[in-house]
This record gives sequence, structure tokens and C-alpha cells, in this order.
Amino acid sequence: MPSKSITPVLLCGGSGTRLWPLSRKSYPKQFAPLIGQETLFQASARRLSGQANGLNFAAPLVLANSDFRFIVTEQLMAIGIDPGAILIEPEGRNTAPAILAAALHAAADDPESILLVAPSDHVIPDTEAFQAAVARGLAALEQGDLVTFGITPDRPETGYGYLELTEKPDASGAPVKLARFVEKPDKARAENMLTAGTYLWNAGIFLFRAKDIISAFETHAAALVEPVKASLSQAQTDLGFLRLAPEPWVELEDISIDYAVMEKAPNLSVVPFTSAWSDLGGWDAVWRESGPDGTGVVTSEHATAIDCENTLLRSESEDLEVVGIGLQNIMAVAMEDAVLVANMDRAQDVKKAVEALKAKGASQATAFPKDHRPWGWFESLVVGSRFQVKRIVVHPGASLSLQSHFHRSEHWIVVEGTARVTVDDDVKLVTENESVYLPLGCVHRMENPGKMPMVLIEVQTGAYVGEDDIVRYEDVYART
Amino acid sequence: MPSKSITPVLLCGGSGTRLWPLSRKSYPKQFAPLIGQETLFQASARRLSGQANGLNFAAPLVLANSDFRFIVTEQLMAIGIDPGAILIEPEGRNTAPAILAAALHAAADDPESILLVAPSDHVIPDTEAFQAAVARGLAALEQGDLVTFGITPDRPETGYGYLELTEKPDASGAPVKLARFVEKPDKARAENMLTAGTYLWNAGIFLFRAKDIISAFETHAAALVEPVKASLSQAQTDLGFLRLAPEPWVELEDISIDYAVMEKAPNLSVVPFTSAWSDLGGWDAVWRESGPDGTGVVTSEHATAIDCENTLLRSESEDLEVVGIGLQNIMAVAMEDAVLVANMDRAQDVKKAVEALKAKGASQATAFPKDHRPWGWFESLVVGSRFQVKRIVVHPGASLSLQSHFHRSEHWIVVEGTARVTVDDDVKLVTENESVYLPLGCVHRMENPGKMPMVLIEVQTGAYVGEDDIVRYEDVYART
Repeated sequence: MPSKSITPVLLCGGSGTRLWPLSRKSYPKQFAPLIGQETLFQASARRLSGQANGLNFAAPLVLANSDFRFIVTEQLMAIGIDPGAILIEPEGRNTAPAILAAALHAAADDPESILLVAPSDHVIPDTEAFQAAVARGLAALEQGDLVTFGITPDRPETGYGYLELTEKPDASGAPVKLARFVEKPDKARAENMLTAGTYLWNAGIFLFRAKDIISAFETHAAALVEPVKASLSQAQTDLGFLRLAPEPWVELEDISIDYAVMEKAPNLSVVPFTSAWSDLGGWDAVWRESGPDGTGVVTSEHATAIDCENTLLRSESEDLEVVGIGLQNIMAVAMEDAVLVANMDRAQDVKKAVEALKAKGASQATAFPKDHRPWGWFESLVVGSRFQVKRIVVHPGASLSLQSHFHRSEHWIVVEGTARVTVDDDVKLVTENESVYLPLGCVHRMENPGKMPMVLIEVQTGAYVGEDDIVRYEDVYART
Repeated sequence: MPSKSITPVLLCGGSGTRLWPLSRKSYPKQFAPLIGQETLFQASARRLSGQANGLNFAAPLVLANSDFRFIVTEQLMAIGIDPGAILIEPEGRNTAPAILAAALHAAADDPESILLVAPSDHVIPDTEAFQAAVARGLAALEQGDLVTFGITPDRPETGYGYLELTEKPDASGAPVKLARFVEKPDKARAENMLTAGTYLWNAGIFLFRAKDIISAFETHAAALVEPVKASLSQAQTDLGFLRLAPEPWVELEDISIDYAVMEKAPNLSVVPFTSAWSDLGGWDAVWRESGPDGTGVVTSEHATAIDCENTLLRSESEDLEVVGIGLQNIMAVAMEDAVLVANMDRAQDVKKAVEALKAKGASQATAFPKDHRPWGWFESLVVGSRFQVKRIVVHPGASLSLQSHFHRSEHWIVVEGTARVTVDDDVKLVTENESVYLPLGCVHRMENPGKMPMVLIEVQTGAYVGEDDIVRYEDVYART
């Protein structure tokens, strides 16, 4: 019989600019397939799903910001996982308020709820080993402990915080009491800690009962409790999302769970985890986690390395070939609209690329070529002085707003699936290989009434083809 | 009063795989804008045009292979130069047969014709200095000399052949008699030659009267003369091109003008040229000729270098941002469909990239994203399993073939200019923001009857959207 169910709490904050160009503000790294075929978010959700290794995972509770809510549902749908709830943070306030909101939400059903809180942008290749670690942690919950997970270091890493244990973990990997948190060390300190055996990397993954973490908040971060309760109690349901009330949320302190609670709590146990783990904090980490070959080379499907060493070559498009010749210690990541080439030792400076592009006004700094919307996504295929061509993909059952334009006419050609198209008073179905003309000024809408994605080519012509030439009359996503 | 006119003979052979991805078999480097806004071919044609510095250039005689004939006319038209004749070589046979054909063609009008033979893929930034060198060479023609141009070396280059002079050139830069040709040297030899002062780089640029070079062929390479005469006399005029007859052309020896004639001719003078010159034989040469800044960095418009040294960063598209961080001695060239990242010392190995891509069957090895055709060009914007979207640009007055397809229907939307469209028995004008539907199997044609380029978006749908699903009924370019 499986034990009491565990509710995963997936945190989807974080912008990951150090993984530009694949990770951008408009589409951060947790939603990108950095390692393997699935995105990091999908892999995180799958790792904490189903029944296996004596565990019984409930539907996940997801915390996301408003911009990415539809990406969350789309990516979960694609791997067949139904979220229990998706809580929308009015603004990011770091992990403490988010986790407290999740705990209060779960406690409303059952204060004994067991929550496993995990960032959604980490790589943990061995799911079975991780689930076994979770199972070891359950024992400590009975005594009201808050459990965190510590990764056994395999190198003197200076980029992570550490957890100092009261004693060396034994071979069973049973929870050990925490002595204290240790900030990111310098190299010498990191080397000492590596040999000591009582220091583990702080992975930011937690296991606790809802009532215990709420109690810890009440003791150590009392100022957060009432405002978060208020935002939750006034939350509004919107298309299946639970939108936390902006007031008083936006007044909350921006603070991590470590600072707010964990560093002060006496009842902290650490479960040692000896398998591979990475927070993918840079392209050097992606290179390391991708399994370099004997000469240290990692290449993606459409990348070719000739006489290279310690080099990462990635093409993020099947229409893009990347070739490296005679490279050493280089990482190159190519997309259709942006290419990064950097020395491997400068992985932490990739955010400078983003800053430089922002300074010159290049959209690639923050905007992804595919623009995700509530109803699906679109990408611009070509822009001329008086025309633009887009590919538009609409999810089954989804609908764009009823809209009109002052400066452009549009030709729509359906190339996959079936659209229901409204043009002024006329509504009709348009299927593969059929087209519709939308004269300038007409009031129109595109919907996908079918069961498969609808793909449409839109050809715009007119004196101005910017996104902001739009008048919205009705919108199921409340954007009018 | 300008002197007797000089007919430029522009050689457009050469595939330039060492400049991949910008230079590919389907679109070699001479037709690409490698330095500055114009292509190398356009810059070469412009350098040898008009009346200036006491010279009077006649319309150029261009030698090209069949695949590039329309690129030649398109690029000359764009800079307002009318070619005197475009000779099409049935197959490339190196420079000797091509130059002989040009000389015979010119001699038919006037055996005294002065010809200036130049490759079309060299960089010579100072046009005035070059024209002055040409003017100095004219004096030597009176005595029946063949004149070649020698570049004063500024480094011990091992990648070029040298011309050894009988004496040091004087300050006037007057022609000096050639002692002999010197093959590409090793480093030590190159350093000795650099200090000697009597060795110049062999640039492969020639000046002679038609009758003198023909006479030299008759003396030193007699076997070529009759076959080339025969190919020329049986040449066919085709849309303004002069197509040399394949028989006996294809039987000709593949031999350079240096081997066939110049190394044997006693009447060779060399005009020293002291200004900058490059044959752009690799990306390192492009880097050098692009004027590196104080830290050795060259960046194109959409490229950004952060803490780089001795590095070339090029974006070949206005929709593509390239960023380099902490690079030393690296060259990176990014296009929408291919990216090269290489150590600067490996410039000569870029052809290995082409070989590697050929081996894996990637079209980027040889095919350019823009596909140039007699009537204009097209590019694929997106390809799905059952659809494809293309941008098609048709030159004024040009016409595609009358054709049909077995597996696809097409939607055409004109976004710039006006098209005349034939669909079975119907012919009509279609202008900006109008569309036409072409059902599967219909016989159709697209023409541009207007005075400006016509741009059309083609949306294809069907079970197969390959280029080879085409039946051609009539084609003004004789492709049926």
C-alpha cells in the first residue's frame, strides 16, 4: 500500500539570463529542453508524479508568474500531468511568500498534507535515486522536522551555498540534523569542505508537512503570514488559475525561504543525496551535465565539432547547422535569431551579453522568437517594409480575441487543422488548404474548434504591421 | 582626351569554400558582400568602369559558368553597368581557356583591343592607385609585352606565388621585366624574399593586347587555340548570353594562364602595385582586410564583442544577433541556416566544415538559403510535414515557367509590385494585397510585367512539397 500522498510544489520563478540565448525573460530556462527532449519543468513535474518506490505523488501545485501560466498548462498537458492548482503570483517575491502561499493552500484541505517543494529548473538524472531520498526524508516528518536535501559535492564548487551537518551521513543516507547554513565559499574553503565530508550543497529542495512549515513561518517570519493569508483568501479563479490578490502581496518582502525560515529553524534535517544534480546555472553546467566525450566535446544534433576540445556546440533549430573547427574551451549556442560564442570560463558573464543587447535595443535580449500566448504561439517568418508573414499555432479549443486593425489587411491560409473564422457578421469553418481575406478595418476572430492544433499562415499587408495596431473587442483571456 | 579604351575581362570562376558559410557552391564568394556593401564582383566591375585617371574603360566582358549567369546580370544591373558580353563556359577549365576565349572574342572586333583580365573575388581598396598602376602598364603594351601586376609584400606570406623581378622597381612604379615565377614558398624563403625587394606577390591580374596574348597562346599553348576557336565560333546566343559550344570545350586541358603561357613567355613585364590587395583566401584574410580595431576585433553590424581579442564576429542577417564573450583568436560567422566558429589559425581548414556537412547530407554544405533563378530568387520561410511557405522575388519583365504540380496546391499573395498570373485559360493581373488560389493540377505561370520587383508569398499545401514536383510546359529560360 502506498504511503500518504505527497503534493509536489513546483516553483517556476527565475529568469535564467545566464543561459541566453536559449533562456530569455520572455521564455526562461525551465521551459526549454536544455538536457534531453523534455523541458526542465516537464522533467521536474514527471520526477514527482505517479506512484513508484513506495511514494504516492498527488497532482502538483504550481507557482508561476502570470506571463508563463499558459506555458505551464501547455507543457503539463503535453506530458499528461493534470495540475492540482496553479497559483499565479501577482509579482515575484522570491521563495518565502510563494512557499507559504502553497502551504496555506494545501493546509486548507489538510494541515497534515506533505509537501515536496522543488525548483523546476534543476537537473536530476536519476529519478529513482531521488525518489528514494524523498522516501528517507518522510521518517523525519513524524517528529515535525523540516527536511531539506543536500547534494554530496564532487568538486570544490564556489557557486553554491552549503549545508553543514552535525555529523557525517551514514551509508543508509538517513536524515542528519543540520548544524548551519554556509554561504558560497572561496576556493580554499570549498576544497576544505569537499574533504571534510560534513558539507553538502544546498539544493533548495524541501519536504515538510503543511502545518509544520506554517508554524515555522509563524515563529520566524510572522510578518509574512497575515498578508499571504489575505492574498490567498482574496484570490480569484481565472480560467483554472488561482490568481493571488495583488493587495497585500505586492507589499511583501522579497525574501528567500532560507533567509526567512530555514536558517532560523532548529528542527531542520538534511537528507543526503549522492547522485548527480545540477541547477544548470550556466552553459558550463549544461556542458558538464550533457556528458562530454573523451575530448570534452558536447554537440547537439545539428552541430559538428572538428578537432575541438572541452567545447559545447549547440544548434537549437533543425534548420541550423553549427560547425566548430580547432576550438578549445569554447561554448557556442546558435538559434535562428541569436548566437552566443563564449570562452567556457566566462559562463557567468553571459548576462553581459543580455545587457549589451538591451543597451543597443535588440529585441533578442529578452524576447524569444516564438511568442507564447494564452491561445498558442506565433512567430514572424519575414517582415518587409509593407508586409509581414507569421506562422500561428492555436491550441484545440482556444480562441484569439475579436479584433480589428487600422493599418493592415490580412490573408489567412490554414495549413493544418480547422479554424472557425469570424469576419464581421460572417462565421465559417476554414480547413487545410483554404484561405480567408480580412480587409482592413473588419472585425475578426480566429478559433480552433477542433481536437488537434490548428496551424495558419498569416500574410499581412499595409503601411504598418506592428503588434500594437490592434483593437480588441472581446477576449476570453480578459485582455480587452 | 582619354586614351584608347580598355576592355575589362572579369573572371567569375572559383567556389571559395574556405569562406563557408557565406560562400557556397551555389553562391560563391565573389557574389557576396564580404567587405563593404557591394559584392566583390560588383566592386571589381566598378573598379574597372567609366573614365578616370586617364583611362577609358569599355563595357566589361564577363566569363561565368551557367549557374551564375543571372546573378552576374542582376549584380551588374544593380550598379548600373552594362556588360559588353557574358561568355558562358560549358564547364570550368581554369583560366587559360577562359582568357583565350575572351581574347579571341575581342580580337574579332579589333585585334588591337586592350584587355585587362582580373579575377572578380579580390579586394583592392584604393581604386585610384590601381587605375594608376594600369595606366603605367599601358606603356609596355606598345612593344608587345604581356603585363602582369605584382603586389609589394607587407608580410612573409606563404599562401601566394611570387614574381621575381630582374631589378628592383623604382619609385615611379614603372613596369619591370620578369625574371621568373616562384611557387608558394616556405616561411624562411618568404622572409628572405620580403627583405630582398625584388619579389612581388602574383595577383593573377593581366594587361595585354588581344593579338599579343593570342600570339603567346599560339607559341606556348598551341593545343588550346583551335578547340577554343571552334567553341567560340559555334557559340550560341541565349537571352543575351554567349554560350560557348560544349564540343570541343569539355575536352580542353584544365590549365591556368600562368602554366599555359605566362611562365614560358619571354615578353613579360610586371607593374608593381604598392597599395593594399587581398585575394580573400580565408576568413583570416577577411578579418585582416576589414580593419581590426586596437584589440584586433572586427564586428559586423549585428555582432557584439565583449572582452575579445583578435576575433572576427560576423552576422550575415539583420535578424540575427551574434555575441562573443572572452574570445581570443576566434572567427565566428553566423547566417540564418549555418554558423561557423573556428580558431583563426584554422582558416584554411574551413573546407573541412563543408566536407563534414556533405558527409552528413546537410544541404548547407553547398546550397545557399536564397535560391537564385533566371527570373529572380526564392527562399523557404518554413517547411512543415504537409506545407511550405516561400518568399518569391521576380525581376521586372521576368517570368517563371508555365508549370503544374501533382501533389500540392498553392496560394499566392502579392505583397509588393504586380504579378500577371496565368491559371489554366485565365490570365489576370494581381497586385499588392491580392491573392490567387492554384488548385492541384492546374497549369499556371507567374510573371512580373511591371517596372519594380514583384514580391509574392507562396503557401503550398499537399502531401509532398519538394522542388521536384514540377511539370514545365514552357520556359523562356529553356528549362523545359
